[in-house]
Amino acid sequence: MDILSKLNTRYATKVFDPTKKVLEADMEELLEAIRLSASSYGLQPYKVLVVEDPAIRAELRKAAWNQPQITDASALLVFAVHYNINEKSVDEFVDLVSQTRSIPKDALLGYSDMMKGSIKSQSQEQVETWVSKQAYIALGFGLVTAAILGLDACPMEGFSPADFDRILDLNKLGLKSKVIMAVGYRSEEDKYQHLAKVRQKKEDFIIRY
Amino acid sequence: MDILSKLNTRYATKVFDPTKKVLEADMEELLEAIRLSASSYGLQPYKVLVVEDPAIRAELRKAAWNQPQITDASALLVFAVHYNINEKSVDEFVDLVSQTRSIPKDALLGYSDMMKGSIKSQSQEQVETWVSKQAYIALGFGLVTAAILGLDACPMEGFSPADFDRILDLNKLGLKSKVIMAVGYRSEEDKYQHLAKVRQKKEDFIIRY
Repeated sequence: MDILSKLNTRYATKVFDPTKKVLEADMEELLEAIRLSASSYGLQPYKVLVVEDPAIRAELRKAAWNQPQITDASALLVFAVHYNINEKSVDEFVDLVSQTRSIPKDALLGYSDMMKGSIKSQSQEQVETWVSKQAYIALGFGLVTAAILGLDACPMEGFSPADFDRILDLNKLGLKSKVIMAVGYRSEEDKYQHLAKVRQKKEDFIIRY
Repeated sequence: MDILSKLNTRYATKVFDPTKKVLEADMEELLEAIRLSASSYGLQPYKVLVVEDPAIRAELRKAAWNQPQITDASALLVFAVHYNINEKSVDEFVDLVSQTRSIPKDALLGYSDMMKGSIKSQSQEQVETWVSKQAYIALGFGLVTAAILGLDACPMEGFSPADFDRILDLNKLGLKSKVIMAVGYRSEEDKYQHLAKVRQKKEDFIIRY
């Protein structure tokens, strides 16, 4: 597979064709790729919300500068972080490692202490930044996978996280929305698809040591 | 291409085979995929440093808890952000857009003002967080592409950014190191390659609306 031709064809889609739904099998593959994303310690301190309900998406659109991608894409993914990650979260994760790998929990104590120490050494704000960055890796996994599957996508920061959290009732889940990704198929009317991709020149972007 | 089998095979490689170099063509493809990564407004507020020099890598290893990936992988990529992104950076970017797309600069004034307004509305610390997140999307692009190319990789936050910045003389370039990625080939001795992948269950990870 020519990954570069796929990445050259992708772009932040501004106008989706609202009549085209992504096949369930493609959505499953996309979500699975995101689930397989790397994260610090493997903690995965976030969830992926898949919003398809039209009424909820209409509400979200109002909280995102009325951008049409929110309602017109096939689905809207919201990457939401566990902002309050703590010792209990680490214990739950260690349980999962122990079960998945059939390793006694005692043998994971050093690993557990390292994670807890790292979290304790950070302010609440620093932790929130740290977990957000992990969600952005997952966004990267999602964008590349969408391109490979021939899906169009638009990563977006232009929304009100507080309003999204309220509309999706995220506080109840200990989550905060951080970045979103609309997924679907580009409309023929989206003029952006015809524009040349703008990137730093290779010789400016790469520095060799 | 079965993207999921590639992603299931990848893991944060702890022990690289120091005798195996990544082919130049594969490195070029990997770096090009990273250059094509999405970023907010398309600003690409970061650079990718490719560190191959053994002496420099020995220094960096000391600043990264002596982790062997730093010296034993074929190359070390450092994602370093322009922490001081400002009106001038936006002007340079608008120049690039104007040249690449043959659009007069005047026609990009609204776009330019929007970016400048967004940057001005944030504290220096918020800007640094924002640009760092963009680098993490690029890390995601790099990790998926490495997996597709059959390369092994280790994303790492466990290093002293201040020491890395000093060793690589990044202050001079207006850059700060944020996250690193070792690239090469796994050693047969790396026991981690045989462990089951630990991930939240699909039904826990995905929330549907």
